[in-house]
Amino acid sequence: MENFDFQASTNILFGKGQVSRLPEVLATYGKKVLITYGGGSIKKNGVYDDVMNVLGKDFELYELSGVEPNPRLTTVEKGVALCREHNIDVILSLGGGSTIDCSKTIAAGTFYEGNPWDLMGNGQLVEKALPIVTILTLAATGSEMNGGAVITNMATKEKLSFGSRLVVPKVSILDPTYTFSVPSYQTLAGSSDILSHLFENYFNQTPNTMVQDGIAEGLMRAVYHYTPIALENPHDYDARANLMWASSLALNGLTGSGKKGAWSCHAIEHELSAYYDITHGIGLAIVTPRWMMHVLNEETAPRFAAFGHRLFDLPLNSESPMETAKQAIQKVYETSKAWGVPMTLGEVGIDDSLLEEMATQAVKHSAISTDGYVPLSVEDVVSIYKQSLTEMTF
Amino acid sequence: MENFDFQASTNILFGKGQVSRLPEVLATYGKKVLITYGGGSIKKNGVYDDVMNVLGKDFELYELSGVEPNPRLTTVEKGVALCREHNIDVILSLGGGSTIDCSKTIAAGTFYEGNPWDLMGNGQLVEKALPIVTILTLAATGSEMNGGAVITNMATKEKLSFGSRLVVPKVSILDPTYTFSVPSYQTLAGSSDILSHLFENYFNQTPNTMVQDGIAEGLMRAVYHYTPIALENPHDYDARANLMWASSLALNGLTGSGKKGAWSCHAIEHELSAYYDITHGIGLAIVTPRWMMHVLNEETAPRFAAFGHRLFDLPLNSESPMETAKQAIQKVYETSKAWGVPMTLGEVGIDDSLLEEMATQAVKHSAISTDGYVPLSVEDVVSIYKQSLTEMTF
Repeated sequence: MENFDFQASTNILFGKGQVSRLPEVLATYGKKVLITYGGGSIKKNGVYDDVMNVLGKDFELYELSGVEPNPRLTTVEKGVALCREHNIDVILSLGGGSTIDCSKTIAAGTFYEGNPWDLMGNGQLVEKALPIVTILTLAATGSEMNGGAVITNMATKEKLSFGSRLVVPKVSILDPTYTFSVPSYQTLAGSSDILSHLFENYFNQTPNTMVQDGIAEGLMRAVYHYTPIALENPHDYDARANLMWASSLALNGLTGSGKKGAWSCHAIEHELSAYYDITHGIGLAIVTPRWMMHVLNEETAPRFAAFGHRLFDLPLNSESPMETAKQAIQKVYETSKAWGVPMTLGEVGIDDSLLEEMATQAVKHSAISTDGYVPLSVEDVVSIYKQSLTEMTF
Repeated sequence: MENFDFQASTNILFGKGQVSRLPEVLATYGKKVLITYGGGSIKKNGVYDDVMNVLGKDFELYELSGVEPNPRLTTVEKGVALCREHNIDVILSLGGGSTIDCSKTIAAGTFYEGNPWDLMGNGQLVEKALPIVTILTLAATGSEMNGGAVITNMATKEKLSFGSRLVVPKVSILDPTYTFSVPSYQTLAGSSDILSHLFENYFNQTPNTMVQDGIAEGLMRAVYHYTPIALENPHDYDARANLMWASSLALNGLTGSGKKGAWSCHAIEHELSAYYDITHGIGLAIVTPRWMMHVLNEETAPRFAAFGHRLFDLPLNSESPMETAKQAIQKVYETSKAWGVPMTLGEVGIDDSLLEEMATQAVKHSAISTDGYVPLSVEDVVSIYKQSLTEMTF
């Protein structure tokens, strides 16, 4: 096991009705609140009204709405300007990972003299940040419980990230009922995102990390179990609750601390959503089984076989793991398809015209060529993109 | 799932050599440090010397040594007096759960006007506490990452606990090499303690908590896998690392948050160590399989069967789970025995003379008669104690 630092400092207030504690939470930080949110779904599902009702007139509220699904630098810049202009004390982020990521970058950018884009890849530049409180409305990115943020620069077609403990949300309110109205497509994209975080940490170069891997397997099983239940009955509280809590725990350091290596599918997918603005989780669901098949070899087969055994109760034959490994990958692919994920690039509007360019960027923006579970060249990535154009056969 | 608050605020510095960061860590809180430790094993295994070497002459150090394996109120009172007399800034706890629990009670007791014993069962009385930094030398209780403490009052033969977020350690240094010298008996007692924390949360009245239960299963598998490796080769870094990290995660809220109910085996065991001062983990290992068999019935069998399937790869026959359930309990018993745990009360010096009295106290000091996984009366507890006098047969 590698050395690591771990801290899950976010105070999670989990469950129905926790929004009632919001005034007390915000008052810790001050009176001037910047509320950030996306396209307005929070005004339809009652979250916005709940927040306004509990806050009453005790706070000075400012708003930044219209945060994009892949949040843009231009929106961050607007937020920074608002925080500086109004001397904001605390950012209240209502939404999913995009809104929270945008809020983190605003929180850090407010105290950073240069352009917030400088922070990407340079979390150590963050010396101070506004406190962030979130109310989560989508189980997906885990941003509500970590210090990472991903921002898209449309001018340069780059989607980059930064991380700092200073932007970890102070408090996150996780009320599963706030995800009852999430449409099927976003539910399955969210679950795909959670699974991908777990896969990325699980298929990794560090051996002998059963603690981290056992946690990951448990979370994966929960996601595979509860996603079809939530799709069938969006108001199933326990399904929504398990997916919500899994989303936070999948990316708060629990499954990755003590392990090393680069995340392959995220690097490959990030270019798809940077170039085509597709839903991140859907891109991951498409890329993942092709990546798995591409890196499957005699050396990696036992790991995929063990995964198949733990996740899908496939028979574990340690003498010939290859067959079980292939069945496991088939399960990953077919489960996504059964949930209704569009499983080819064509279905999300991506053709073969930019594959080389995106593959070059994927390798350039990441360490997958040296530190991937199996190191990947530009040619490898092109091959994975090409495999993603057509249905998989087994 | 039940509503809950979760925060894992302890900054964990995990891995070999992390002690080098101690001066920077302590300096955050001040110069006057009370170092607490137990019977002196830290002077044999190098921990004490390492600490003195890195701290040099930059700090004003005071010491409270001789903290008992079941830490006593009288020792807490000594520590409180030292902290008040020397205006201590921070407590540095070197050891396992006993030393840390004692330190937590000192930390809170220093600012509490009455006797620290008042705090037991009344964590809300804690309004202020000294910061605590720990260097863990035993993988067992999880005290290094939570706000709970158990203290024994020898005068009243009571072993009681309190919990407060204010006594959660600020920083815990987890260096697996510091557990290389832990003797076999303490290693298996520690693993038994970790497993018991996981069992207590796992066998619980709240349904539909796959996230918490999947994490628990993963941690249990790691403990079952790495304990015999650590017993065979005490210097196996990865085995010690996984056991250490499992100990912290087993009781930091991850596997219990969102679930309700009283802990049965702990309530039953606490009286054994309060009356006979036996090693807590050993008492738990003895009591646990008897408790499991006692509460096994048509209703609980599917849960025990699922546990056996996940943990020991037993066949899952959902039509007749009773057989698998019994095999799972047998596995729990026989694994402890194979590790070398003395598995009858007689082997740890306990006869049948006080069983009724202890059972009465166990029910009185806990909520097991109403909130246990299966509610337990005094008669039930007596029966479990009696079963613990002789070997189990299957």
